[in-house]
Amino acid sequence: MDLQSSPQGVVAGSIPLFAGHPAHELLPISTVRTLVDSIWSGPDVVRLFNYGDEQGNRQLIDFLAARHQQCENLNIGREHLMIIGGSTWGVGMITHHLAGPGDTVLVDAPSYRDALHIFRDAKLDLQAIAIDDGGVIVDEMERRLRDLASVRRRPKFYYVVPNFQNPTGITLARERRQAIVDLSKEYGFVIVEDDVYRDIRFVDDLPPSFYALSRGENVLRLGTFSKTLAPGLRIGWLIGPAETVKRFVTSGMLRMGGGANPFAAAIVADFCSSGRWEEHVARLRNQYKLRRDCALAALDAVMPDSARWTRPEGGYFIWLQLPDYVTVDELEGQAQAENVYFASGKGFFVHPEDGAHHLRLSFSYVPLDDLRSGIATLGRIIKGARRSHRSRRSRRH
Amino acid sequence: MDLQSSPQGVVAGSIPLFAGHPAHELLPISTVRTLVDSIWSGPDVVRLFNYGDEQGNRQLIDFLAARHQQCENLNIGREHLMIIGGSTWGVGMITHHLAGPGDTVLVDAPSYRDALHIFRDAKLDLQAIAIDDGGVIVDEMERRLRDLASVRRRPKFYYVVPNFQNPTGITLARERRQAIVDLSKEYGFVIVEDDVYRDIRFVDDLPPSFYALSRGENVLRLGTFSKTLAPGLRIGWLIGPAETVKRFVTSGMLRMGGGANPFAAAIVADFCSSGRWEEHVARLRNQYKLRRDCALAALDAVMPDSARWTRPEGGYFIWLQLPDYVTVDELEGQAQAENVYFASGKGFFVHPEDGAHHLRLSFSYVPLDDLRSGIATLGRIIKGARRSHRSRRSRRH
Repeated sequence: MDLQSSPQGVVAGSIPLFAGHPAHELLPISTVRTLVDSIWSGPDVVRLFNYGDEQGNRQLIDFLAARHQQCENLNIGREHLMIIGGSTWGVGMITHHLAGPGDTVLVDAPSYRDALHIFRDAKLDLQAIAIDDGGVIVDEMERRLRDLASVRRRPKFYYVVPNFQNPTGITLARERRQAIVDLSKEYGFVIVEDDVYRDIRFVDDLPPSFYALSRGENVLRLGTFSKTLAPGLRIGWLIGPAETVKRFVTSGMLRMGGGANPFAAAIVADFCSSGRWEEHVARLRNQYKLRRDCALAALDAVMPDSARWTRPEGGYFIWLQLPDYVTVDELEGQAQAENVYFASGKGFFVHPEDGAHHLRLSFSYVPLDDLRSGIATLGRIIKGARRSHRSRRSRRH
Repeated sequence: MDLQSSPQGVVAGSIPLFAGHPAHELLPISTVRTLVDSIWSGPDVVRLFNYGDEQGNRQLIDFLAARHQQCENLNIGREHLMIIGGSTWGVGMITHHLAGPGDTVLVDAPSYRDALHIFRDAKLDLQAIAIDDGGVIVDEMERRLRDLASVRRRPKFYYVVPNFQNPTGITLARERRQAIVDLSKEYGFVIVEDDVYRDIRFVDDLPPSFYALSRGENVLRLGTFSKTLAPGLRIGWLIGPAETVKRFVTSGMLRMGGGANPFAAAIVADFCSSGRWEEHVARLRNQYKLRRDCALAALDAVMPDSARWTRPEGGYFIWLQLPDYVTVDELEGQAQAENVYFASGKGFFVHPEDGAHHLRLSFSYVPLDDLRSGIATLGRIIKGARRSHRSRRSRRH
């Protein structure tokens, strides 16, 4: 969820540029209210309060199948889809079913902090591959795979947020996706495609998903309603090979608890089927694009030339590389003293020191004024650090 | 969730004595509706739709702390409590954090089928200890622990449903609980107390929980609203040592997804805080006791003397031991032909053949008439099997 503490824990009056949350004012609460009001008179209301089908809400599965057909020309049968309790549930389930302690998985450097945390909890061996502006560097991945193969290690999976990556906002280039699909076949690993930001795009087209490129083979793709509808409903989906979906659906966890929250899933299903979905997502794209533009303009205005940052085409995040003369720790201390909070780059690396000059800024959660003033504060601190760095240097000479 | 398939999968016109579900007519849907109607005007509505605190709904934590104080004189600080997505979530989390592939855990024989399934998915080594009418046989547990110690194995935990056990309905005797607490200290294992049926009791008093007996040391206790309020809301709780709760709350899964479904948890919290809780639970006890009485009367009326069954003082289940002359497989085939479905005993044992003459009957889900007629059908089939068994024997002689 990308908060050092929950929204409840946000310091009053602070500017939480660390929060990978949807903006409160973009949560479609009044629509949800209308939908909930109509649930009580539906024929299935009792079912929504009892244990649900392990595969999840059927209406929502059908909606998702139709939408993937419509948006990506992907023909996904029901047996390839299941509803899950947010993409978190998917990452956990995949981790526990596909890998065990000591098993190797590939991740980007940097990669999504909380996913790394889940992998560490499961005692996996994390192999981080560097990325550049086009996403993970395929030559480096191939070299690593060869090295691993030479000591008879085969990664169980490669975990990636392919679109508007968390934390960098970078989208993985199409030709790299194809090359990685080829590598996954050659080296026998699964691609776990955590595609949670897909719907928050500011461009018309995205590269095809790994799932599309591989024709569904050996890819597990995750989606979520947390970034578009409401994280508090905890509903997402998983697409994968029929036998893998079946294995998850018939697992002990699903047998015991039933499918993802039946009541919440019904609300999401009704939202999607109401015809409001596309309009809602279009509005989000506009609104988050405004925020992205505002953040980029603020960065352009206040940052020194030696700072660098990404210009994401969707999602929630901008990745900022600090000048050599200031570390993220120094910046963090001073920024917090001025009530500005961000996500230190160190949390996103398997080797935290690799992120010593990086930070993630979220433009999704705070109002535009706070976004501007928070970034202005960071710019001022960074420029101040340059002056004191220079004066320290000149004193030493 | 104890269904071979979901309620949606129940064959129309059949009698699903296998379903470990609350009765549809006892789900307090109209009350939930009233509570949801008032959520929209509350000051916190936005928070319910964003990521929630990892520990879960604070109001619900406070309610549970107060209720354990009131009902059991247990003083549980907030740091010992967390809200989870049903007890399933708890069993999964405990499994993955406390044990890994090849690790030993102790379970009852028989034990809850879906928990065994989760442990098998995690590739645990299952050591099953026989039970009798007082629950698990402590001497057998101690012998097993000594045997394991002699090969330097220490179980990570003992999993038990202490009250009205699933599948037998048996309540573990007080002195055995104390003896097991002593063994857990001597042999260094955790007790996982899955106390999901506690509130559905037909007697005034229950033995103290493991958590109470051990003064909170080395015990993880699970509770749920699935058996009392609504499984579809997927909300339960975990009580344990502060350091273990902290470890769970700060795990990757909770950091990524936030706490248990904020929207559903708020509904449950409002239900509990509304003052309706005790009255609702009292009603459930009456209603499920009626069903239990009905089932026992039906069994008394139709079963042959050589069948035996438990007389549970709460919960959802009766455990039936068949006469030697009929196996559960034979009964199952014939019963299904007459549209009566039950849970075969074989699923509840680590060694399925140990359950070849057992079955679990759920009295919670089906209406009284179906309960009577379903049990009558089983009695008729069993008696019929005796006659054909006798005639086979007499032909052989």
